Amino acid sequence: MNQVKIFAPATVANVSCGYDAMGFALQALGDEMVFTKTDSNVVTISKIEGAELPFEADKNVAGVVAKLMLEDSKSDFGVDIQIFKKFIPGSGLGSSAASASGSAFAINQLLGNKYSNLELTKFAMHGEVVACGSAIADNVAAAIYGGFILVRNYQPLDIVEIPSPSELVATIIHPQIEVKTEDARKVIKPEIPIKTAIAQWANVGGLISGLHTSDFDLISRSLVDYVAEPARKHLIPHFDAVKNAAIEQGALGAGISGSGPSIFALSKGVETANNVAEAMNKIYKDKNIDYKIYISRISTHGAKIINSVNASL
Amino acid sequence: MNQVKIFAPATVANVSCGYDAMGFALQALGDEMVFTKTDSNVVTISKIEGAELPFEADKNVAGVVAKLMLEDSKSDFGVDIQIFKKFIPGSGLGSSAASASGSAFAINQLLGNKYSNLELTKFAMHGEVVACGSAIADNVAAAIYGGFILVRNYQPLDIVEIPSPSELVATIIHPQIEVKTEDARKVIKPEIPIKTAIAQWANVGGLISGLHTSDFDLISRSLVDYVAEPARKHLIPHFDAVKNAAIEQGALGAGISGSGPSIFALSKGVETANNVAEAMNKIYKDKNIDYKIYISRISTHGAKIINSVNASL
Repeated sequence: MNQVKIFAPATVANVSCGYDAMGFALQALGDEMVFTKTDSNVVTISKIEGAELPFEADKNVAGVVAKLMLEDSKSDFGVDIQIFKKFIPGSGLGSSAASASGSAFAINQLLGNKYSNLELTKFAMHGEVVACGSAIADNVAAAIYGGFILVRNYQPLDIVEIPSPSELVATIIHPQIEVKTEDARKVIKPEIPIKTAIAQWANVGGLISGLHTSDFDLISRSLVDYVAEPARKHLIPHFDAVKNAAIEQGALGAGISGSGPSIFALSKGVETANNVAEAMNKIYKDKNIDYKIYISRISTHGAKIINSVNASL
Repeated sequence: MNQVKIFAPATVANVSCGYDAMGFALQALGDEMVFTKTDSNVVTISKIEGAELPFEADKNVAGVVAKLMLEDSKSDFGVDIQIFKKFIPGSGLGSSAASASGSAFAINQLLGNKYSNLELTKFAMHGEVVACGSAIADNVAAAIYGGFILVRNYQPLDIVEIPSPSELVATIIHPQIEVKTEDARKVIKPEIPIKTAIAQWANVGGLISGLHTSDFDLISRSLVDYVAEPARKHLIPHFDAVKNAAIEQGALGAGISGSGPSIFALSKGVETANNVAEAMNKIYKDKNIDYKIYISRISTHGAKIINSVNASL
């Protein structure tokens, strides 16, 4: 394979109760990226559309991951990258994770599938260090594995794939404001009451059990966040109104996507997800807040090939 | 039905990572109790074997639960209770929960199955108040539902049944010392670092996922407790040595049963569970510590009827 065009999904990290441990990938929203082998032995970035990101490979998330993998595999070729961002950085939908995991997935294709998904996640985590300063795995793992994932452990890294019921549909509203991950991290207290922690892990257990058995009522009852949401929701305009509107329209639950400002809701079926979108829509329209809205099933495979070229170019 | 003899299982609460939220019931260890309808309209306790417990119904866990249920159901009969304790109070194996849930289960039989398992759990929780001062649900829910359970929420009470792989076998060693639940609670700090909490709920997610998929490696990796075990293990003689011996013999994991002093290990298959028992055995034998040891599969149904009499007595 000499050239591959791939889709790298947007992802929702945390998923209410699963703060810093869970994530899922979207089917209908994500970046497109083209990776082309070159004789140069270096990584170049020739095109970036849809966002202002560095062209210098060492400062670009996708570039850093690509360089690392070409070095690790002692490859005899270089790569040129073109990035077509379909959702903007700072949305809370894993923009840097899409670039990082998309790069890891694509380079692995060019290398003939040398690495496992776990290894790709580790490479992609280096991209997250460039983007936000820490090697967090929830978004990149979701983008690589697809579906719901649990980051059970970091050292060693242990990613658990959790089944996602096919009827599950996400509605996501992205108010066009910036919430810096750093600021969102600052409001989380370094210690939490043991009672809060117990309630949170009981909900993680309920959510994971509900995903395994397609028990939508249990999923709904478990989509509760006692830790991040109460601390962060003031950073997001009209969070409670949007969440309540979603739940009134039948959403199983709603919460902050990653560190925000996007708000996600999960529904059973497309019809409910559409009604939820309309209700979320109305809140921000009435308040004159710029926003984007997305409706998507859960991705079952994460990053994927759109097309590829095998002949030499 | 005029008389029912029942089996009420011993239970392991917490299950390492699932502190105050998970539990499972044993198949081979539990109390026997006989409940007989009387014309008296009161609850009496005519026999207690195997432990020193109060005969006064208002002070006896089984008596309290029986009285409550007869009142709630406006029954026209009284009940006499005989209790045959097969494992002693203070073991960390849910002795009071066996009495409470056994009573709830048996009275429900005499009432013609009026109540759901959730309602029986709520009645049995009143017995736990008498026994230890707080209405904890993990042991009683495990004893009523059987298998693994998750207490997802208290208000309202929400019990989630988690599948237990049939090959799972518990080995339990009970050093003959007393650890008061109250003392064991005191050593748990009221606040924990958010990083510890995240690691704990990631393991809860892993354990529940592993139980759903019979992934024994994942169960093993997830049987980690960062919260109660480090704080409590000094209360249990040679805890680390016993745990390490169990794991060296192939146990998937080991930890404190409830608030101790019993130590449980989980293994795949009876042969490993036997080897684990021998290794645990040896530690306490060498150290001259009195102990009892049990090997048991996971109960699939919780409290159950041994036999019953339908004719008037």
